[in-house]
Amino acid sequence: MSLSPLPDSHITGGFWAARLASNRAAIPVGYQRLVEAGNIGNLRIAAGETAGTAEGGSFRDSDVYKWIEAAAWEYLREPDDWLIERLREVTRTITAAQDDDGYLNSAIQVRGEERYAQLWMSHELYCAGHLFQAATATARATGDTSLLGVATRFADHLAKTFGPGLRPELEGHPAVEMGLVDLYRQTGEPRYLELARYFVDARGHGHASKPGFDPSQYGNPAHYADRVPVREANTVEGHAVRAVYFAAGATDVAIETGDPELLAALRTQYDSMRRQKQHVTGAVGSRWDGEAFGDLDELPPDRAYAETCAAIGALQWAWRLLLATGESWYADQLELLLYNAILPGVSLTGTDFFYVNTLHRRTGARGDVQRSPAHGRRPWFNCACCPPNVMRTLASLPAYLATSTDDGLQVHQYAASSLRAGGFAIDVETAYPWEGRITATVREAPDSEAELALRVPEWAVGACLDGEPVPAGAYARVRRVFRIGERVTLDLPMEARLLVSSERVDATRGCVTVARGPLIYAIEQPDQAAGVTLEDLRIDPTMPLRAEHLPDLLDGVTALHTTGVVTTPTDSAYRPYGEQAPPGAPTAITLIPYYAWANRGPHAMRVWIPTS
Amino acid sequence: MSLSPLPDSHITGGFWAARLASNRAAIPVGYQRLVEAGNIGNLRIAAGETAGTAEGGSFRDSDVYKWIEAAAWEYLREPDDWLIERLREVTRTITAAQDDDGYLNSAIQVRGEERYAQLWMSHELYCAGHLFQAATATARATGDTSLLGVATRFADHLAKTFGPGLRPELEGHPAVEMGLVDLYRQTGEPRYLELARYFVDARGHGHASKPGFDPSQYGNPAHYADRVPVREANTVEGHAVRAVYFAAGATDVAIETGDPELLAALRTQYDSMRRQKQHVTGAVGSRWDGEAFGDLDELPPDRAYAETCAAIGALQWAWRLLLATGESWYADQLELLLYNAILPGVSLTGTDFFYVNTLHRRTGARGDVQRSPAHGRRPWFNCACCPPNVMRTLASLPAYLATSTDDGLQVHQYAASSLRAGGFAIDVETAYPWEGRITATVREAPDSEAELALRVPEWAVGACLDGEPVPAGAYARVRRVFRIGERVTLDLPMEARLLVSSERVDATRGCVTVARGPLIYAIEQPDQAAGVTLEDLRIDPTMPLRAEHLPDLLDGVTALHTTGVVTTPTDSAYRPYGEQAPPGAPTAITLIPYYAWANRGPHAMRVWIPTS
Repeated sequence: MSLSPLPDSHITGGFWAARLASNRAAIPVGYQRLVEAGNIGNLRIAAGETAGTAEGGSFRDSDVYKWIEAAAWEYLREPDDWLIERLREVTRTITAAQDDDGYLNSAIQVRGEERYAQLWMSHELYCAGHLFQAATATARATGDTSLLGVATRFADHLAKTFGPGLRPELEGHPAVEMGLVDLYRQTGEPRYLELARYFVDARGHGHASKPGFDPSQYGNPAHYADRVPVREANTVEGHAVRAVYFAAGATDVAIETGDPELLAALRTQYDSMRRQKQHVTGAVGSRWDGEAFGDLDELPPDRAYAETCAAIGALQWAWRLLLATGESWYADQLELLLYNAILPGVSLTGTDFFYVNTLHRRTGARGDVQRSPAHGRRPWFNCACCPPNVMRTLASLPAYLATSTDDGLQVHQYAASSLRAGGFAIDVETAYPWEGRITATVREAPDSEAELALRVPEWAVGACLDGEPVPAGAYARVRRVFRIGERVTLDLPMEARLLVSSERVDATRGCVTVARGPLIYAIEQPDQAAGVTLEDLRIDPTMPLRAEHLPDLLDGVTALHTTGVVTTPTDSAYRPYGEQAPPGAPTAITLIPYYAWANRGPHAMRVWIPTS
Repeated sequence: MSLSPLPDSHITGGFWAARLASNRAAIPVGYQRLVEAGNIGNLRIAAGETAGTAEGGSFRDSDVYKWIEAAAWEYLREPDDWLIERLREVTRTITAAQDDDGYLNSAIQVRGEERYAQLWMSHELYCAGHLFQAATATARATGDTSLLGVATRFADHLAKTFGPGLRPELEGHPAVEMGLVDLYRQTGEPRYLELARYFVDARGHGHASKPGFDPSQYGNPAHYADRVPVREANTVEGHAVRAVYFAAGATDVAIETGDPELLAALRTQYDSMRRQKQHVTGAVGSRWDGEAFGDLDELPPDRAYAETCAAIGALQWAWRLLLATGESWYADQLELLLYNAILPGVSLTGTDFFYVNTLHRRTGARGDVQRSPAHGRRPWFNCACCPPNVMRTLASLPAYLATSTDDGLQVHQYAASSLRAGGFAIDVETAYPWEGRITATVREAPDSEAELALRVPEWAVGACLDGEPVPAGAYARVRRVFRIGERVTLDLPMEARLLVSSERVDATRGCVTVARGPLIYAIEQPDQAAGVTLEDLRIDPTMPLRAEHLPDLLDGVTALHTTGVVTTPTDSAYRPYGEQAPPGAPTAITLIPYYAWANRGPHAMRVWIPTS
């Protein structure tokens, strides 16, 4: 089953409208930070607009391209003079910066460095991939194809430089694969798809890795998703963003070239990730060294390397697999990732970010000031890949809500929205994720029998469609001749749920996570009783969890209340088995949605809560 | 109470004699590897003996110095022509490499780099510290003071370069503090102690850190034990080896300058480390990024960054605190570290090493090929700090067995040995750590009343001295006029023990560690029933553990046998609380001492075992 993305979808209110409003307000802030950090400046110097030396690594153009994509999608959501002027201005600069033969990387151009000489770390094709995505987005969202011209000139240059019989080295950081397929879809030029296919199949033989005999981290092909050919791999490994970006691009290639073998391999890899390498929040990445996936079942909440960009890459991958297969669990993944792995990466204001989203922060925690949540959210990073990646993802969120087929509309994500495709136009009303009722009102419908499909998440056991039970983990499908104005109502159960991890996951043994609807919950220090240290809270899984919507807390959240125990810490790390720990005392425990943590300064927090 | 190190102690047989024999056999192998890796070559080029370019980082001379120290202590244990000739030859080279003004760092000299320009990473004073220790060891062990001359010339140069009113920067990696105090003890030159005191007190103000505004890992003063002045710190943080080396040197300064305030601060820090930052094996370090201590109670077995050098630094620190205080728990720490944190760092052959000693290796594990135990032991490393550090530590092991006071001998570590000091000469007979009986036979004794003190480890509840119960966690002291030939017999209980971790340690919740005597045990795949995956083993803490000495297994170990359960893995990472996991089946479980793991190739292993 193959689904088509929906060009005409709008978020009209509710939860996501508020988050998208913050995101939009952050777009000019992001531009300013790109100016201050020198990313825009590098391009201006390369363009001859100003003089100076290039700032930072040669990956920096990509941050500008991601910001462009965000601005373009925002312009599509709601046109605005500042946005279009800024887009035109930056596009003029980028156009002027491009070399005559199509090459473009401002840091390398300004420094006069040799092209492609350190491809495993230079991010030259990574930047190209983001340029291609930005150019495609701009053309679709604004109709302006100037940046698309830059993109196709660069892509043409790449097609003359890389490929069979040409340069054998590969880019260390995937992204160009997705970008090339986007460019192919936009222009119809088959060479772009060919080059993407080449990059996908050439990988896995050590050509993307730092050359040399030393297979430590940066000489290790696994770091670059380059140890095993994609058709032979049965899991994901190495640098998490590289791995999921590559897999997403490979899925694009599988879809566009009609390659069931490749698609099957990628589905196996996603399934392995989901079953043994994904945190309960949907986030991926377990090791700080190498920003990497861990071994199977290595899922530490405190030292999770749950980079926001890796969650975004996983979202892109899951989305492509959803389009390719129509299976609802990929849409479940999108939901999990959006609420619990991507949204936690940005503050409620939209202007402060996490690079890494650990699932646990201890009292008095310390760590890498740039990347660790120990020190709270930051306005920007030395390596600022995540903030504009969040911006473009939220700006394009309406596109992830639904898809169409020839005779139907499939609703994957629930938000107050209007959706039009497959002959349908529907209005969705809901207070999701706080409440479980979703009402779709048909505004237009095909004359003949057609299908409206509403996703019932796997967690939604007990869901009802128009009062009738429907199975969880599938689409509730209504196939008939629809009348204008009629309604379909889906009720998802919103009782809080307790989750435990698999027997093989060591780091969360003896703990539970609380979920409600699509949201993963957490305990954060400010919500607990005075004098209680978060480390000493134990949840009693037999006690009820009471939901309470608090409109003034954290931009409005449904909190959960329960009763647990405060333990008394022992004075040494180890004691004989059977020797009793000091007794505990009962206490109230309040949980908030995980995405909303760290909006009141850096405090202790945990997603996995030990049981009493 | 202040104890004196014992110059005249010998290991005569048993467990440690076998380990020391392997270590001795590895000394020529180590020399050859230093030649192959270019460490010796760098010094030869600096000496003008050969031409060429310098290999590797400017820390590399330190590996040669540590090897010299090992060779010197081995020469003291048993003189040997090859050893003394090699020591003379290397000393000639080092002497010729030294600049006229006393400066010495072969890589920086050969490359013509500016001295002290990147002191946070250049390891110039770190190398000096190891030179001073090597020179002191050589003078004591062989009587040859040539290297001591090189050391004092370098120390004199340092005293003219660093200090109040001189260069304000500090070395990024401590070690020079211990070396300077050793040099002071050997030569009596007070300027060396003065300089060491300066380095100790000047630290903690950011002068040892990479300059710049960016406080990420390598710009973070915590990484360099440079965030908080030593007198104000209440725990250890940052790079583990840096932290414990610095603390050991500061303890030396506290002892030699008689500084109770400094000593009290260091005792507080050690206590914090022991209670909340030390793995059950004694190893320290919890984060791969920055090779660092984690937050309080952050003690992951699978991702422990338990560097062999950090355990050796902890040993040196504990030893100095034992000398300063005479408190038995520091000697308990030495025992824990020697058997369970340092010895695991070297193969039974003495020739293959771990850089990092994790407490858990999963089936199919992958990681940094240089440093991760995932790929098994290695003959050497790009950064080969650990192998010669193990060599010098084992070669000097007899020095850690006992100390003396004016009227007594204190035995801290049990090995078949002969010990002479404080008017005593005793022969110790024991099959420790396999058996708990230790018999000391008095060969010489003072004419008047004197004291023989035997450590009763904290774990040895139920110990008896000559048949009478004695308290654990203290010294059993016999004070009387001793007769030649009389015996004192200590019996330590050798029942296997189960340990659990504190309520605040997350990573090992629901697990137990098995210990017997001073040894921490582990399960390793090759000892388990066929077809059982180590991940699925659960120990039943109510079942007995049966000890069996197996002379042919792993050079002879006492294994432990018990009964547990094999669980059936679930097919997803998370499931609802209360949903039963698939049932398990009973199985036999065999444990081996942790130090002996990974001598049969890289297999799954765990120290912390989930309970059924």
